[in-house]
Amino acid sequence: MKTAILTVGTEILFGQIVNTNAAWLSQELQNMGFDVMYHYSVGDNPKRLEELIHHAFKDCDMILTTGGLGPTQDDLTKETIAKAMGDVIIQHPKCLDDLMNNYKRAGREMTENNLKQANMPSTAEPLPNDQGTAPGFWLEKDGKIIISMPGPPREMTRMFNLQVKPRLEKLQDSVIYYRLIRTFGIGESKMETVLLPLIDGQTDPTIATYAKEGECSLRIASKRATKEEAEAAVGKMLADVMDIIGENVYSIDNEDLIDVVGRILLEKNITISSAESCTGGLFAGKLTDIPGISKVFERGFVTYSNKAKIEELGVKEETLDKYGAVSPETAVEMAEGLKKNTGSDLCISVTGIAGPDGGTEEKPVGLAYIGIVFDGKTHVYKSLYRNVNRKWNRNYTLLNMLYHVYSLIK
Amino acid sequence: MKTAILTVGTEILFGQIVNTNAAWLSQELQNMGFDVMYHYSVGDNPKRLEELIHHAFKDCDMILTTGGLGPTQDDLTKETIAKAMGDVIIQHPKCLDDLMNNYKRAGREMTENNLKQANMPSTAEPLPNDQGTAPGFWLEKDGKIIISMPGPPREMTRMFNLQVKPRLEKLQDSVIYYRLIRTFGIGESKMETVLLPLIDGQTDPTIATYAKEGECSLRIASKRATKEEAEAAVGKMLADVMDIIGENVYSIDNEDLIDVVGRILLEKNITISSAESCTGGLFAGKLTDIPGISKVFERGFVTYSNKAKIEELGVKEETLDKYGAVSPETAVEMAEGLKKNTGSDLCISVTGIAGPDGGTEEKPVGLAYIGIVFDGKTHVYKSLYRNVNRKWNRNYTLLNMLYHVYSLIK
Repeated sequence: MKTAILTVGTEILFGQIVNTNAAWLSQELQNMGFDVMYHYSVGDNPKRLEELIHHAFKDCDMILTTGGLGPTQDDLTKETIAKAMGDVIIQHPKCLDDLMNNYKRAGREMTENNLKQANMPSTAEPLPNDQGTAPGFWLEKDGKIIISMPGPPREMTRMFNLQVKPRLEKLQDSVIYYRLIRTFGIGESKMETVLLPLIDGQTDPTIATYAKEGECSLRIASKRATKEEAEAAVGKMLADVMDIIGENVYSIDNEDLIDVVGRILLEKNITISSAESCTGGLFAGKLTDIPGISKVFERGFVTYSNKAKIEELGVKEETLDKYGAVSPETAVEMAEGLKKNTGSDLCISVTGIAGPDGGTEEKPVGLAYIGIVFDGKTHVYKSLYRNVNRKWNRNYTLLNMLYHVYSLIK
Repeated sequence: MKTAILTVGTEILFGQIVNTNAAWLSQELQNMGFDVMYHYSVGDNPKRLEELIHHAFKDCDMILTTGGLGPTQDDLTKETIAKAMGDVIIQHPKCLDDLMNNYKRAGREMTENNLKQANMPSTAEPLPNDQGTAPGFWLEKDGKIIISMPGPPREMTRMFNLQVKPRLEKLQDSVIYYRLIRTFGIGESKMETVLLPLIDGQTDPTIATYAKEGECSLRIASKRATKEEAEAAVGKMLADVMDIIGENVYSIDNEDLIDVVGRILLEKNITISSAESCTGGLFAGKLTDIPGISKVFERGFVTYSNKAKIEELGVKEETLDKYGAVSPETAVEMAEGLKKNTGSDLCISVTGIAGPDGGTEEKPVGLAYIGIVFDGKTHVYKSLYRNVNRKWNRNYTLLNMLYHVYSLIK
């Protein structure tokens, strides 16, 4: 069923808040197999709101709205929806009761304007709100559905989960199933090119690629009569995809790389320490985002200066002189010094040029070397994509560090 | 001027990404005095995209789009805008040149589909993209303006700031001047209350407060015939605001706290080292985001385990036993040990409980102690707001560290 999401509120148009309601509802609807065709945001303006309702219903059979249900004068969502649907507003006895009880329970006095929250389009079915004072509603007319929910995310998500979702499930005649595949080390164009034989002419399952800074994701989705059929179709396509790009895939469950790495370290009880130069603590900072990581993460060094590399990690002055701080040799000595110092199972080092300055033809900005001591072996990797800016270079180097750790411990 | 923001991309309708572009652009446009009437999001569907363009232009004179400019088959924004505006697509020689050079510089092979990124509506003025491969464009016809920018926020914000904003300023007949005041350590309600005498009944300059995680900002704006008048009005109001909340203000130029701290450290040539427990490298990672910081940042320790605190910083075992790892005493010994180890002008330590586990009644999750040795004195600070979640707790502790550094070195 084609669906639109309409969020009402000046604070969104002012950019004061980011529209997380639309994203959250989209995910829920998408997962249930509804096709979300539009997001609209509009202020508390009846004319523009009404026009958007008509615009949506040209294409769609259902609109979910959030916001504009409150007690203030500029909350006009209900009145406008009633008008757009050829309905009228009444004071709803059940809503009035709920409202009175709400205020009585809270021991607060109800001001006159709050009465407005008991108003409803006459043919609407109210959706009680146990997290706030404004009820929502479900309105059907001539095969079109409008579901109206309050704006605060806590109230909206609860109303959706408990009251809207069960009703929506009854409307469905097919089931959607999908997986989000996460990869590293392959660009979107390249991925599309190698997967073209699978993508081309494919109607179900569908494959879509998404580029995110430094990595690329893949969504495989199928819409079938039963969940079993959809799962089987996606599973078969996933197997075909893995045959082609399997070595770049680090998650088939939409896990972030850091979460995958953290999970494996904890599961296998692999202790880890880090020695960072160009990333300056980003690796340790990211790893320690993971709850419980103190079980395996022992310590980290940010050896930004050469002096620190020598004193803390025992890097040889002659190595720094001969090969430079940014060199495979230095990365290796950093990692091996770290191993001597900490004895952790996995010792990772990084040294590079984050920019914007400090690059040369031979060693451009963005270049980094990653050293890893693990399982009795020392590995060294070169990391270089393209110099975007300092922040991006550091984040890309960080992703590369995580990916090499993943590849060794998986 | 009435404006609409149109974001193109299936990943938004799927709810895979939150639409931060619309919020960011809304703020920028609002600050410049443009009225944002609509946000729309739509997939890569030419028919629906074209209809939205027509819908927006019924009410608005300008549309800003983001997304759908890439090289893949489903990127159709340019073609659709050209059609909606009665224009045609051509291969733009300058864009083709830029594209070729881009790939040459990166040493990457250009696949055939990338050529698409050199296409442009024939009457459009291209907006080069030095952060990615897809250029944007500015198109005017019959008094209507469409500005089309790429979807990735890093590319879009840079293109807007450097190329779009200066052009937009020329369209304005009155001048808006504003300042964004950044504060730490005062909540939004409190700020509104103490500033009420200034806010109440004020039509120009206007004052608006915005709460962001852990801090609160203030926007003072004036719309006048000339820049001088607007600046004078804002300046006077700013002086009044500073009289009331000056001690909480760390920037009157919308600088992030980290940038203020980095700038002062570099200006005053104050060398710094860090020893982190609960923030796990976030402080060092954040500080080293600043270009050129290697002049003053010497080294950092992530002493996550007690063993690391003892070995690297000389924290006494009996201190850890008697007061615990999370205590003012441990924070002090960490900072003083760091001073002994590095001799940096400013040595900062932190130890706390990031959660979700590990809290007690006496030492709840979210609690942290910050130690700073500076200018011959040792300071220790308690940081505790409310336990939201691990990520938030760590970030709030980080902000607190930066704020205390700022207060000492400013």
